[in-house]
Amino acid sequence: MRHSILSITGGAGRLRVLSVALVFLGATGCRRAEPGRDALYVSAPFAGLAEGLFDGEVTFAELKQHGDVALGAIESSNGELVVVDGRCYQVKGDGSVAVLQDWQKTPFAIAKLFHPDRTLEVTEEVDYPRLRKLLDEKLGNPSLPYAFRIEGSFSHVKTRSVAGQKQPYRRLIEVIKDQVVFELQNVSGVMVGFRIPAYVEGINVPGYHLHFVTADRTAGGHVLAFRSAKLHVAADAASAIEVALPHNSKFAASDFSHMDKNEWDQILGRVPLDK
Amino acid sequence: MRHSILSITGGAGRLRVLSVALVFLGATGCRRAEPGRDALYVSAPFAGLAEGLFDGEVTFAELKQHGDVALGAIESSNGELVVVDGRCYQVKGDGSVAVLQDWQKTPFAIAKLFHPDRTLEVTEEVDYPRLRKLLDEKLGNPSLPYAFRIEGSFSHVKTRSVAGQKQPYRRLIEVIKDQVVFELQNVSGVMVGFRIPAYVEGINVPGYHLHFVTADRTAGGHVLAFRSAKLHVAADAASAIEVALPHNSKFAASDFSHMDKNEWDQILGRVPLDK
Repeated sequence: MRHSILSITGGAGRLRVLSVALVFLGATGCRRAEPGRDALYVSAPFAGLAEGLFDGEVTFAELKQHGDVALGAIESSNGELVVVDGRCYQVKGDGSVAVLQDWQKTPFAIAKLFHPDRTLEVTEEVDYPRLRKLLDEKLGNPSLPYAFRIEGSFSHVKTRSVAGQKQPYRRLIEVIKDQVVFELQNVSGVMVGFRIPAYVEGINVPGYHLHFVTADRTAGGHVLAFRSAKLHVAADAASAIEVALPHNSKFAASDFSHMDKNEWDQILGRVPLDK
Repeated sequence: MRHSILSITGGAGRLRVLSVALVFLGATGCRRAEPGRDALYVSAPFAGLAEGLFDGEVTFAELKQHGDVALGAIESSNGELVVVDGRCYQVKGDGSVAVLQDWQKTPFAIAKLFHPDRTLEVTEEVDYPRLRKLLDEKLGNPSLPYAFRIEGSFSHVKTRSVAGQKQPYRRLIEVIKDQVVFELQNVSGVMVGFRIPAYVEGINVPGYHLHFVTADRTAGGHVLAFRSAKLHVAADAASAIEVALPHNSKFAASDFSHMDKNEWDQILGRVPLDK
């Protein structure tokens, strides 16, 4: 496997995807078997991360009790978090990847104990918008949260990460303006992430959110764009949402009455950053 | 105790409150003692109720496991739910009050196992806006959800309820346009409710939300306004939020991407209803 890392400034061109062969392999039928173990877990409201509350709150040991698939941030906003198969990876601002220790902490993470309901083989070329559309069509259930584990070969993955911050922390949008963007070419790897329903605002950001790590765990980050012609998608609908609230006075004292949703879409790379 | 029930159309005049004597009796210090038992529990996203999803989903037996203080709706939107000290009351559209049975169901409720952190004696005249202001000042912590149990004597309580609906259910705002308003004079009773933080949108409605039942459990409803000069307020901050998601295809298939927050404020009686 080879990949190259390049900073870029322009957007990727749109793909013309002609057709996609889809095979549903069926549901496991077990997702409601164990109450409390089928929840989407949010370690802290996203609103806090957006306002620069980057103090670690939940250890990765604790996070793993709530999910073996997860994404999020790391204390002091030091890179991007990717949790695959219960292993926690830190994609640093320089693009390198470290294994996170159980005692290290996250200021914000989304996690789920992964028991896929459905799997889906994508064997035609797709980009990120096309995959979102396919998943929306095939999964339906727009009001259910879904967790995803998407393994495959990618001709291109565009990711980003951020360097660790020092106190006093800036707001997340300011940190993102200094993000480092990576262009990974011809890599295999895993994207993990979530589809958040429209009614989960403030606690999270509605829509798709994916993080990536290569098969050799040497590169990855928050997914901005990709191209792939071979993906194995596993999807797991949640039947509950659990939100932990930070036990610190900085969070308790924060007033989130002026959240800017367009800014949040900028943070997630869905719309261009205001300069 | 006496009270009268009158339908009204006009708004109550503003009160001039000169001073309020407040006594904090201190925290119990036990609110984080038992993880999982200190959560604000939401039985279904409010977004569903607003769209007319009035099918009962969670039984009152189950709801009581998550809270002995609760408010919400009743299957088919048949009245207002008030849960005080673990007893579930239905304030019907005709103003009468029934005790709900364990097998009956709610389409939407907010609940908490109540372990008050703080108590507050109000001994000067307050109305609803003044009490909200007082609680905001005294409790602080704008980003923490709070449950309340507020017992006292009221010179006036203005409440509302709604009559049960038949399938196909109308949207909640249409049901609210037919609400019945009650003016209770010189009653004692209990208001139970919640302060929902700004970042909990869609799942709930940010701000204060109170339901009332008289001491003799013969009248009550969703609180629109009140006047009191003697209130014992107990407040309990939550350290987590748990949201159950309805296990039915109508909910799963709902698209909540066009939620109208002004409409939700109309539903809660915070702003005038559009005609």
